[in-house]
Amino acid sequence: MTEIPKAPVTRIVKKAGAERISKEAEEKIVEAVEAYACRLGKKVFDNANHAGRKTIQPEDVELATKKYC
Amino acid sequence: MTEIPKAPVTRIVKKAGAERISKEAEEKIVEAVEAYACRLGKKVFDNANHAGRKTIQPEDVELATKKYC
Repeated sequence: MTEIPKAPVTRIVKKAGAERISKEAEEKIVEAVEAYACRLGKKVFDNANHAGRKTIQPEDVELATKKYC
Repeated sequence: MTEIPKAPVTRIVKKAGAERISKEAEEKIVEAVEAYACRLGKKVFDNANHAGRKTIQPEDVELATKKYC
């Protein structure tokens, strides 16, 4: 786990308002971001298959992140 | 935007099953992961404030990522 480096994720979280982040919280945030990337990866894979493709295209990501009411 | 490097995110997405990912899709995936990190950052900030703290702690992340029925 933790393929994604902590520093850029922490920069984004600080931009969102956080002043200080404990080391353990930083760890947990990166884990949550990676878990999201994994869920998104599965979705876009299924979406490409559903469209009869082996290559992920932008529309697979759009469908995966689309918000419904 | 794109604080998070593409390579580690793409590795996670490939582990989820994708064989090939177009450049444009790769871009969109990293954008979606950053948007998630930003939403999560706002949530954990609000959670820390709600608990009367300025420092993000692991329990702020746990509350933010908790699944309800």
